[in-house]
Amino acid sequence: MNEISVIGGGSWATALVKILTENNISVNWYLRRAEQAFAITTDGVNPDYLSFLKLENTRIYASHDLDEVIDRSDVLLFVVPSAYLPLLCSLIDKEKVSDKFVISSIKGMVGESNMLPSSYLASCFDLTPFQQCIIAGPCHAEEIARNKKTYMTLCGTNEGFIEQISNWFNSGYIQVNASKDMVGVEYAAIYKNVVGIACGMAEGLHYGDNFIAVLMANAIHELNLLLDALGVRFSRLGISTYLGDLLVTGYSPHSRNRTFGKYLGRGYSVVEAHEMLGMVAEGYFATKGLKDTVLKLHLDLPLLNTAYRVLYNRMSAIDEFKLLERNIK
Amino acid sequence: MNEISVIGGGSWATALVKILTENNISVNWYLRRAEQAFAITTDGVNPDYLSFLKLENTRIYASHDLDEVIDRSDVLLFVVPSAYLPLLCSLIDKEKVSDKFVISSIKGMVGESNMLPSSYLASCFDLTPFQQCIIAGPCHAEEIARNKKTYMTLCGTNEGFIEQISNWFNSGYIQVNASKDMVGVEYAAIYKNVVGIACGMAEGLHYGDNFIAVLMANAIHELNLLLDALGVRFSRLGISTYLGDLLVTGYSPHSRNRTFGKYLGRGYSVVEAHEMLGMVAEGYFATKGLKDTVLKLHLDLPLLNTAYRVLYNRMSAIDEFKLLERNIK
Repeated sequence: MNEISVIGGGSWATALVKILTENNISVNWYLRRAEQAFAITTDGVNPDYLSFLKLENTRIYASHDLDEVIDRSDVLLFVVPSAYLPLLCSLIDKEKVSDKFVISSIKGMVGESNMLPSSYLASCFDLTPFQQCIIAGPCHAEEIARNKKTYMTLCGTNEGFIEQISNWFNSGYIQVNASKDMVGVEYAAIYKNVVGIACGMAEGLHYGDNFIAVLMANAIHELNLLLDALGVRFSRLGISTYLGDLLVTGYSPHSRNRTFGKYLGRGYSVVEAHEMLGMVAEGYFATKGLKDTVLKLHLDLPLLNTAYRVLYNRMSAIDEFKLLERNIK
Repeated sequence: MNEISVIGGGSWATALVKILTENNISVNWYLRRAEQAFAITTDGVNPDYLSFLKLENTRIYASHDLDEVIDRSDVLLFVVPSAYLPLLCSLIDKEKVSDKFVISSIKGMVGESNMLPSSYLASCFDLTPFQQCIIAGPCHAEEIARNKKTYMTLCGTNEGFIEQISNWFNSGYIQVNASKDMVGVEYAAIYKNVVGIACGMAEGLHYGDNFIAVLMANAIHELNLLLDALGVRFSRLGISTYLGDLLVTGYSPHSRNRTFGKYLGRGYSVVEAHEMLGMVAEGYFATKGLKDTVLKLHLDLPLLNTAYRVLYNRMSAIDEFKLLERNIK
């Protein structure tokens, strides 16, 4: 039995495995492709993500056998794209998970009914809040790989469990904060990817620093409106996980959602932009899911509307931003 | 009589004159040096700031005679460094101004008693609030020069006057908002320059995007604490003038305070950093003035403390940021 089983082989999963193994935590690691697991076992390198990074493979058991990885620990960490979660969960025997601790770090909504990732996992595996925890950023994986200082938030109601995992992730370059607000943190992580796309569009359309700052200021305002409508108290504005993660997604060139938006701003279609990105941006699904949610809440969020119309109604970014200019302040 | 007299010849003054003259407003313009006034009159170019810009000089009366410029309009716009304001005001006959309308766009504190610029002007010239108005950003002059879209806030209690000036500044690339909160807007404009220096230090010290986003999130939190303590209602978080101006100062490479901070982060002394900048950064004085104010309010603001200790106690930026890492969240 290793201490934790990590499910997912992307850059964020790779960064989390890096932190854990540096802290002498032994990790089982599920990756979809046998070649990935083999490369990690033999060279300590994930060939597909952060491939410049040499991981401490003496503390990693990598495998593409999902059942085996799940069996080998009582703590599971799910780090996969939200769109892939339903398929993944369908492959897992419910009984195997229902007594385990489940951590998730998934930024998006799940399924037709736009569930939060933690709620989806709870309903799939019959989990109580006592068994769950969320990891939130701001943590661009590329910077974790380079030991650049950042802050991580662990959300959950089981204080003993949170404390245990805090010790696994705290390090010279990661400061771990705790929070109990799972709903707020997950919605903020969904909304930020919409903002990443909108900011990218603004850059692609050659707006300047002044405008992008006003856009981000309005994004902070929209996030407040959204969390208010959801009944989430948002009193400590300074905390890294709401505002910090929003800002880094809007401003950092590491952000894939921002890059996707930039292509749209430059006039490429949604299909072309996704082809150039080489993947589907999380914010693409987040925009649709959040738009449905916001309609139910009777909210009007101009940035979200702009992203939605460009992504789903095939409106041109240039026209939609001319409209947006008048709808923000 | 021209419609407005602009007092100050820096880049922000130049950008404001650009907007006014494009809107067919005739401007008297006081500049300290006769050569500047001559170059503007003959070529429409301010040789010292935004010199790539050709101004509409048929609508400009430029002069280095302060009395004459003041006499030629009933509306005065002061756009000078805050440190220069006391000397400037001492050169002006009080009687000449006390019946005029006075607009100010000055970001800093004035004199030993750390007065707000609008309060200082009011006390110098016996002005009522009815006669005053403030112009606030976010408006990096370099982007105004290139017609990049941005938002400007006019603050004051005289609605008729605000409406009149709104028409002077509204344009295809400037959207003017109105506000009555002069105190909050002036304090936010002072605090943002401290944050510009702190962000620059972080960049100079090679912190990454994650950390800088957390730093900015904490800056927003500090601004909230400061405005709360000052009794300023800060309900509409989205407005461009608080958050937008803070964000652009923290993030934009156009920001001189940020550049100054970057030199400090790289290990240069305060004197060296100012020499390299070729001027004294507004945030240098703002940090001292705000530190005094905050002590009276019994507030503890970690970012402000960090900037203060590096600038005035000659502490090294690298050590102070190690301390700051633990004081933000």
